[in-house]
Amino acid sequence: MSDDGFRPSLDPREVPEPIRLGIVVLIADCAAAIDGGQLERWPDYFTAKCIYRIISRSEFEKGRPIGFLYCDNRDMLGDRVRAMRSANVFQPHVYRHVLGAPRILGQRAGAFEVETSYIVIRTAIPEGAMMVFSAGRYLDEVVLEAGAPRLRSRTVITDSDSIDMLLVLPI
Amino acid sequence: MSDDGFRPSLDPREVPEPIRLGIVVLIADCAAAIDGGQLERWPDYFTAKCIYRIISRSEFEKGRPIGFLYCDNRDMLGDRVRAMRSANVFQPHVYRHVLGAPRILGQRAGAFEVETSYIVIRTAIPEGAMMVFSAGRYLDEVVLEAGAPRLRSRTVITDSDSIDMLLVLPI
Amino acid sequence: MSDDGFRPSLDPREVPEPIRLGIVVLIADCAAAIDGGQLERWPDYFTAKCIYRIISRSEFEKGRPIGFLYCDNRDMLGDRVRAMRSANVFQPHVYRHVLGAPRILGQRAGAFEVETSYIVIRTAIPEGAMMVFSAGRYLDEVVLEAGAPRLRSRTVITDSDSIDMLLVLPI
Repeated sequence: MSDDGFRPSLDPREVPEPIRLGIVVLIADCAAAIDGGQLERWPDYFTAKCIYRIISRSEFEKGRPIGFLYCDNRDMLGDRVRAMRSANVFQPHVYRHVLGAPRILGQRAGAFEVETSYIVIRTAIPEGAMMVFSAGRYLDEVVLEAGAPRLRSRTVITDSDSIDMLLVLPI
Repeated sequence: MSDDGFRPSLDPREVPEPIRLGIVVLIADCAAAIDGGQLERWPDYFTAKCIYRIISRSEFEKGRPIGFLYCDNRDMLGDRVRAMRSANVFQPHVYRHVLGAPRILGQRAGAFEVETSYIVIRTAIPEGAMMVFSAGRYLDEVVLEAGAPRLRSRTVITDSDSIDMLLVLPI
Repeated sequence: MSDDGFRPSLDPREVPEPIRLGIVVLIADCAAAIDGGQLERWPDYFTAKCIYRIISRSEFEKGRPIGFLYCDNRDMLGDRVRAMRSANVFQPHVYRHVLGAPRILGQRAGAFEVETSYIVIRTAIPEGAMMVFSAGRYLDEVVLEAGAPRLRSRTVITDSDSIDMLLVLPI
């Protein structure tokens, strides 16, 4: 446990309601696309130029930019999804995200900074064994594109230092 | 993992605020009634003519209507609760639901279609062993009855193909 | 499982929006301060005169006031955090709370009564082993202090009868 930069939420009165509701929907839909197996739709929740990375808490706290995974544009996210679909080491698992309330921390460079705690339960198919696959938080930058909220960057910060990346599914 | 029909949320501006708030309360209260052991109140969250079923994801995707459990009216839900209360194979367990944000997907036949991810942690009493009992999602039809939101149908779609139904508690 | 006093939510139309949003932020930030390792900021979410206790469900149902832990003012919370920081039996673990939607149950003696289900996942550092550390609910009294929501009391009701209190982290 360490002080890794907890930041309190903005006063909710400072965030316009459509923005607040739009952020909740963006983050919930993005997780539901993964859990529902619609991986091809997952990159749609990002801007064309974007960052998506998965990094452990301890690496993040040391200021290291690169973790388990680093993508710096939406096409790379699509590539990753296609790689997963064609992988012959494919493991039959499904994910279930349960997310806490998105916390809007501030605004920077035209984006809302949003933090959301997550737990992912992985279920093996067909045996049905369930395990906590990952716990951690999303640190997101959300922008509006033609009025629709999109992720300009998502940093998935895992509480654990290790992660089973064979599965290739995004978190 | 398969494409089992992920659907994005409605634009939140299309859902009147009282409806949106009422749905959140309905779904949270329904889970809290179970977790709080007030099973007799759980059927109150359904309409008199209703569907409640529990089905695995893989059966649901195959289009099968019947899963682990199927009830087609509120009285059957009450019967089920009474059966549970009187079962002498009763296992001393409690449940804890943690739910994601309800996602309002659309409107059909006078109802709002709502999907909510869930995790249920089961705790054995008094030993205290905890396990992930079920992970999955609710697919609900919510209608207004005299202004109060009620479940016209709830399909509990479990990520796992197997489930310990001995416990008899609703999910 | 027993009838431990499930109470339904207030009609959301009876709760002014700034109060409702403020309660969500208070409860989410309070958990995030713990998970982010900023324990020294955790007492700030309480009033100077406050109650914080952790009690098992079965003890709570028997009406016992004292459980695993009982603090009756904010300074005691600070003492507890300092004790944890200096403990040489410190175990390298991090917590991750995932909370359900706060349910506003009523008003009493100038406070809003709020119940929130929680799951805490504990991750061992650096091995990364994850376990469900605790599941249960918060029963809170929230007051406004100079317009800011604060906890006048928090009762953490654990589903399990036993808890590993060596870790000393608040739940």
